[in-house]
Amino acid sequence: MIDKRASKYSFVGVELPPVVRRNIRSMAGYKPGEQPPPGSMIKLNTNENPYPPSPLVEETWRNLDYAKLRTYPDPQAQALRRTAAEKFGLKPEQIIAGNGSDDLLTIGVRTLVDQGEGLAYTDPSYSLYPVLGRIQGARGIPVALGSDFQLPPRLQKTIADVPLLMLARPNAPTGTTFPLERIRQLCRKFRGVVWIDEAYADFAEDNCLELIDEFPNVVISRSLSKSYSLAGMRVGLAFARSGLIEEMMKVKDSYNLSLPAQKLGEAALRDEEYMQNNIKLIKAEREKTSRALTEFGFTVLPSQANFIFTRPPLPANEYMEELRQRSILIRHFAGERTGDFVRITIGQPEEMRLLLEATKDIIRKMT
Amino acid sequence: MIDKRASKYSFVGVELPPVVRRNIRSMAGYKPGEQPPPGSMIKLNTNENPYPPSPLVEETWRNLDYAKLRTYPDPQAQALRRTAAEKFGLKPEQIIAGNGSDDLLTIGVRTLVDQGEGLAYTDPSYSLYPVLGRIQGARGIPVALGSDFQLPPRLQKTIADVPLLMLARPNAPTGTTFPLERIRQLCRKFRGVVWIDEAYADFAEDNCLELIDEFPNVVISRSLSKSYSLAGMRVGLAFARSGLIEEMMKVKDSYNLSLPAQKLGEAALRDEEYMQNNIKLIKAEREKTSRALTEFGFTVLPSQANFIFTRPPLPANEYMEELRQRSILIRHFAGERTGDFVRITIGQPEEMRLLLEATKDIIRKMT
Repeated sequence: MIDKRASKYSFVGVELPPVVRRNIRSMAGYKPGEQPPPGSMIKLNTNENPYPPSPLVEETWRNLDYAKLRTYPDPQAQALRRTAAEKFGLKPEQIIAGNGSDDLLTIGVRTLVDQGEGLAYTDPSYSLYPVLGRIQGARGIPVALGSDFQLPPRLQKTIADVPLLMLARPNAPTGTTFPLERIRQLCRKFRGVVWIDEAYADFAEDNCLELIDEFPNVVISRSLSKSYSLAGMRVGLAFARSGLIEEMMKVKDSYNLSLPAQKLGEAALRDEEYMQNNIKLIKAEREKTSRALTEFGFTVLPSQANFIFTRPPLPANEYMEELRQRSILIRHFAGERTGDFVRITIGQPEEMRLLLEATKDIIRKMT
Repeated sequence: MIDKRASKYSFVGVELPPVVRRNIRSMAGYKPGEQPPPGSMIKLNTNENPYPPSPLVEETWRNLDYAKLRTYPDPQAQALRRTAAEKFGLKPEQIIAGNGSDDLLTIGVRTLVDQGEGLAYTDPSYSLYPVLGRIQGARGIPVALGSDFQLPPRLQKTIADVPLLMLARPNAPTGTTFPLERIRQLCRKFRGVVWIDEAYADFAEDNCLELIDEFPNVVISRSLSKSYSLAGMRVGLAFARSGLIEEMMKVKDSYNLSLPAQKLGEAALRDEEYMQNNIKLIKAEREKTSRALTEFGFTVLPSQANFIFTRPPLPANEYMEELRQRSILIRHFAGERTGDFVRITIGQPEEMRLLLEATKDIIRKMT
């Protein structure tokens, strides 16, 4: 023990105490998308919803008794979980609430993966998964998706002794989905937990909710950040059998959801109609933008999310930079599989009109 | 690897998937203090501030643009950290903000303690520390305080190879403090990080802030839950040298503080005068209650917090139950060192009057 610590010591400069874990010290940390000063840019880079939260959220906000903030929130978030249970046809004890779904992903890794064990995740996917594995001291096991970004055959065999596989459905940053039957087969054959990150499921044609009933090794996480326009409030939910939820409840911070997060989350869930209407607007804009970019010579992957993943007819990085000079932010993920593409969040119609106008201008200039 | 998992499998019932970590499955989880329905009880059990947050917090609350909740909060909480830096005479890069100070304690353990390594904490102290060690898969190393609840001599030798020692100053649930010179000596001689949890420091005569300048192995955490009356909003801060803060920033969830938490936290920090006035009221009530209980035959430890730790002249559990029947909640911690005592949060004058009246009644009935 002392020797190990001593070897750590030798790596360390004056500003660092001698004991930071090696896996932490050697890692870079997750890089969230750029957040420019408000109003300065058209932000199509972090998959935010272009519409404000439901009027019911606003009303709840206005009516919250601010004096109550002196008291601790319900550590179990019972009212929020009851509301979610009713909405999704589950029992409250099959639900855990998180400080955003990132909190739940962290809790999942900490509940399931011992230091030194494997954490599997599809590649490409949400770039937070490998970071969470790194923090836990787990071996990151990327599962390369096929050329059409589909799950490889015999996946369950290649990760047979791994306790946790994380995948996003619809996937990010590709926006594509995996057939439900393929996921079902995976859950049946894989011994570890299949964590299905459904942050974008409300924008998709189907979801995996029914698998909770079928399998004890399935967790589904949802976010209120995207479809419910609540990114700033940090509310996520995860669903699983009650036994597994109970274990995850031990790992979460006692008071992980603030009082306003619980109340506003509940209000958002109650206004399904408002949310669905925004989804409709976003989907329409997604199809329109996809068609227009295709006409400009872009390859556009079929999206089931609130963004599109597309390969421009010019270097992706250049396209992104040209857009930035025109005050439009989109996102580029370096790497062999993703580097030729950019990810564009679907904004309001006027924002997408400006994106297409800028794109037309860039294409003309470049060719 | 497969064998280990197989042995886990054999422990597991039908409701649990086969892969929950052993340390999680075998633990009980942290038990927060009881949260009764609002208004039904006099709550002197969770160290909440009896006064609402500053009017500046209310104003900020009213003026928040709810539509902005659709966007992600600043992942770095820069405005909040700048405000805190100014207030505490530090640089922003010496500060990390947390979703309550519990979030920061979790981040600290994850940054510093490898699975299988030791996490030391004083005993008695905040009962979350051993839970955090357990979740991380660390060996919990309780450091028994002396009969006067002081740090034992030669402490740094008994935990020489441990990467992290957590202690609370003022301590909970005792309300007592450790001499600053003793802490300084500990920081100088101990090789690991000394985490000084100052959740109650605003109620104390001094604090350890100056040690940040003196030592690279010191972290100080603060909470806005108690002195700033913001328990429901979840805002905590930790201070250390910038190198260590940078490592902890990698471990935190990207968006760990909601937009309202950042804004309201900042507003609270700006109204020092309001906070200090509440502290004055609470301290006066603390002294008054301590004197009265002493007259009733209670042993009252000298408190530097917003609660008192006291040994009643009857079994502590009975006293707590008798109070509960009179709609007053206090807290009891079972165990050899703490079982004879109860912890009573200092409330408003009228609440403390009712506590003393009930106590008088209980004493009369019992003797």
